[in-house]
Amino acid sequence: MSEFDAYIDAQRARVETALAEYFPLEPAHPHRLTESVRYSLLSGGKRIRPILLLAACEAVGGDTQGALPYGCALEMIHAYSLIHDDLPAMDDDALRRGQPTNHIVFGEGLAILAGDALLTEAFDLLTRSAAAAPQPQRALRAMHEIATAAGARGMIGGQAADLAAEGRAPDLATVEFIHVRKTGALILAAVRAGALIGGASAPALRRLTRYGECLGLAFQIADDILDAEAPTSVTGKEQGRDGVRHKATFPAVLGLPAAKQRARELLEQCMESLRRFDGAADPLRGIARYVVGRACAP
Amino acid sequence: MSEFDAYIDAQRARVETALAEYFPLEPAHPHRLTESVRYSLLSGGKRIRPILLLAACEAVGGDTQGALPYGCALEMIHAYSLIHDDLPAMDDDALRRGQPTNHIVFGEGLAILAGDALLTEAFDLLTRSAAAAPQPQRALRAMHEIATAAGARGMIGGQAADLAAEGRAPDLATVEFIHVRKTGALILAAVRAGALIGGASAPALRRLTRYGECLGLAFQIADDILDAEAPTSVTGKEQGRDGVRHKATFPAVLGLPAAKQRARELLEQCMESLRRFDGAADPLRGIARYVVGRACAP
Repeated sequence: MSEFDAYIDAQRARVETALAEYFPLEPAHPHRLTESVRYSLLSGGKRIRPILLLAACEAVGGDTQGALPYGCALEMIHAYSLIHDDLPAMDDDALRRGQPTNHIVFGEGLAILAGDALLTEAFDLLTRSAAAAPQPQRALRAMHEIATAAGARGMIGGQAADLAAEGRAPDLATVEFIHVRKTGALILAAVRAGALIGGASAPALRRLTRYGECLGLAFQIADDILDAEAPTSVTGKEQGRDGVRHKATFPAVLGLPAAKQRARELLEQCMESLRRFDGAADPLRGIARYVVGRACAP
Repeated sequence: MSEFDAYIDAQRARVETALAEYFPLEPAHPHRLTESVRYSLLSGGKRIRPILLLAACEAVGGDTQGALPYGCALEMIHAYSLIHDDLPAMDDDALRRGQPTNHIVFGEGLAILAGDALLTEAFDLLTRSAAAAPQPQRALRAMHEIATAAGARGMIGGQAADLAAEGRAPDLATVEFIHVRKTGALILAAVRAGALIGGASAPALRRLTRYGECLGLAFQIADDILDAEAPTSVTGKEQGRDGVRHKATFPAVLGLPAAKQRARELLEQCMESLRRFDGAADPLRGIARYVVGRACAP
């Protein structure tokens, strides 16, 4: 196992241990709701957002232990968005990470509520963390990043635009509009929130913002390429489902070779934006390589 | 018009003006999403939660202008919960306040997203308010009250328990469990958050907590009585719909006369808990009388 793989595994384990503690099976919650939340939250996944947040905090010399709850909150928000996106009224997906989606197992009503609960508990966790933070203003700034990225100007706006675009022939501007918001906003918020909690200087924050923007787009392009190329055994989703539904994707508007080229250029831009950082930014470098590499062999 | 009615009208107008400003029709949001949010958020309603929050702040001598964003956030959370509760997978209601429900007008997908957006923007607003607050710790405590009340231990837990109870013969313990969470938690949070922002002393907070607990239960009992008795022209909902679906309600388990008696007793307890407050608590007294009075003629 490479040093980077070991780093990722260790961080993922930290995040997953913390996440499980936030949703214990206890009598104060209705049991079935907790089961539904845990089913989606603790079912694996790359944990790329919290790991990014921790890595960005580390890159500016911050305390990653204090940043952990922010990463967990971000993962809760991500988990809620997947549950709601999979619903029949949205993307209507029956399979996620090789498992039946939440509403298939628990029913639509409970799936909606599990998503609502994850979103609400994420902000409760952020609020408690800010109240306990040595510098509440710094914590509140990070919270604001996360809330704005998750909201109508960010992730939810992207999903609404995606819904509106379905069935129409996608163009590049629409695809970028959707992806910058639907996926990019939360990836960028992970990087920026981690940097803010870590006490980043203004120039460092600017460079990491550039890194986060490029990575967010690269991440989505890679995801689109994987969906178009890889079988279900790799993605855990039904193969080529985006294409069947005329979803707005980069391969659909650029073609596969140009989409891969675009992802590689974005990787170079990620690396360039980290040029002035020392070895503490190596995890950020490794994450960018990993994100692009899983879809475009180097 | 009575002095109390004039007070309520003035506070409602303050809240509605502020709410409309938080969701302008602007290009940064996808247009249809904003329309869907505004349709539910700005379609009337009693605004009882924000008015309560302002009144509790006033009762302890606090600055209600600074409390206004907290009240608005609470109303956004309330509006999101109504949109999601009305969905076909939940209560499946086609009519709310005499108008078609959100998913009837905008479709289920957008209705789910409009709810998600309202919840997220509520926390974004709270975060910005806390960052600008003269005492961030006080603001964070109020935020925590609201988040916990809205979450799996509060409102969402109540809705999950309500879903689970549907179709089964309800008993009093189940009905209380559901209502204390589903409606009571947010009413109590309105009172406590308003008191906290207003700088309530510990004894004042304790008394207002008692007031909020009794009011929350009285509010739901009154709502149940209205649903059982009043025609659609008054409630804006289909008459007797709770009974048809064997929903867990107080009239169903206690009978109407005992439910009314219970509401009147709770009103007395509200008044008793405000005994040591001066005229600044008159709006809280008026709200309690109004809440019970609309279902039980004095």
